[in-house]
Amino acid sequence: MKSLKIIKIGGNIINNDLLLQEFLDDFAALDTPKILVHGGGKAASELTQKMGLNPKMIQGRRITDTETLDIVTMVYGGKINKNIVAQLQARNCNSIGFSGADGNSIVAMKRPVTAIDYGFAGDIIHVNTDVVNILLQHDVTPVFCAITHNENGQLLNTNADTIAAELAIAFSKLYTVSLYYCFEKNGVLKSVHDDNSVIKKIDFTAFEQLKKNKIINEGMLPKIHNCLQAVEKGVTTVHIGNNKMPFNNNIKCTTFQQ
Amino acid sequence: MKSLKIIKIGGNIINNDLLLQEFLDDFAALDTPKILVHGGGKAASELTQKMGLNPKMIQGRRITDTETLDIVTMVYGGKINKNIVAQLQARNCNSIGFSGADGNSIVAMKRPVTAIDYGFAGDIIHVNTDVVNILLQHDVTPVFCAITHNENGQLLNTNADTIAAELAIAFSKLYTVSLYYCFEKNGVLKSVHDDNSVIKKIDFTAFEQLKKNKIINEGMLPKIHNCLQAVEKGVTTVHIGNNKMPFNNNIKCTTFQQ
Repeated sequence: MKSLKIIKIGGNIINNDLLLQEFLDDFAALDTPKILVHGGGKAASELTQKMGLNPKMIQGRRITDTETLDIVTMVYGGKINKNIVAQLQARNCNSIGFSGADGNSIVAMKRPVTAIDYGFAGDIIHVNTDVVNILLQHDVTPVFCAITHNENGQLLNTNADTIAAELAIAFSKLYTVSLYYCFEKNGVLKSVHDDNSVIKKIDFTAFEQLKKNKIINEGMLPKIHNCLQAVEKGVTTVHIGNNKMPFNNNIKCTTFQQ
Repeated sequence: MKSLKIIKIGGNIINNDLLLQEFLDDFAALDTPKILVHGGGKAASELTQKMGLNPKMIQGRRITDTETLDIVTMVYGGKINKNIVAQLQARNCNSIGFSGADGNSIVAMKRPVTAIDYGFAGDIIHVNTDVVNILLQHDVTPVFCAITHNENGQLLNTNADTIAAELAIAFSKLYTVSLYYCFEKNGVLKSVHDDNSVIKKIDFTAFEQLKKNKIINEGMLPKIHNCLQAVEKGVTTVHIGNNKMPFNNNIKCTTFQQ
């Protein structure tokens, strides 16, 4: 099977124009088929404030009400996505912006209301690879923002890490997929203050141990869960590390295995 | 050659949810290859106001400064475009949102500064049909917003009427193209207050006469100019009329010819 690289970038790159330009240089130069997935960074919160609204949070988690959904659709799907696409075009990387609605590529359902009503938050049900794959076969690079839809006309706000993992799982039927999560650290750290304490490999057993011994920062748990699930469901390699890591095999990072 | 319908809708449809739903029902049901082009409606001005900014106008024309460019990118490329795509998916019309940066489809240049500096307003230089055409051939419907790019990473705000005309001209090399402009009137009117006074056909000679006799509303002149230019450059049929007109040959409208 052909190789496919799926790379997810988050706020630390999106919020820093110099880092973003550097990342896009490296990304555009990759000569394998590739997909970029981006989160939202601070821009959504900034727009919320400019509009005189307060981000709604319950137990530390963002609630996507109607106004928030409009904001993330505008910021993720409009401003960030279109600017990244334009900047890739400037690097001769022919790319095209996607939400999950585009090409019906990612179908989600509104998260059921339990003790908390998350509003228009979407949990992914299904990835349709067909339209995206047609573009990949024509050397066009899809750039995904963190918006999905429910096939009934409703857009939904969906975690970008999960979008990257679900795309990687779905494309594993067609390609040998490598999935890369770029973030502000060099990998999963044994000691949060020591950027050199990168844990080289994590499998299910190691993850249980790390959780039990409370070695891993709580915020990292869902990220690691996404990675292990991707590996379990057929993604060939999954890595977490810094923004140079997908482009250089010698850079330290955390690699996941079953 | 195969047929291709290119339909442009403006504020009167986008600002009215009932009209928009009705239009999308008709549009989704069209069984020829088709492209939708949408303007922005009031949403961009509304967001500008919500953010406490004033739209900048010189001699009645909008100036696209950096903040305005961000707003139109968010509103046209994000909110309106992604919602239309999601609503077409709900009607089993597989569609995909485009700005001119996506697939490098529409290349423009920043309008040169003369007496007026229009800011990030883009004048179209070139349409690349290749990526859009791959999608059309796979029954995927492109939905264009009024944003282009300059191939150097700069997004540009571009008139949606012109985008529709330039797409129609470029695709005339590959398809028998019909171009439809939907707006709030039944066509070009002889008498602006009489919605039944639709001028049935306009060619270059008639246009000169209408201008000379000051029969046409000034705001209509650039629209008519776009239409006649499209006809001159190979678009098979060009019509201006109401939002039902593209779907029913019996509805009165204005048709352009050389």
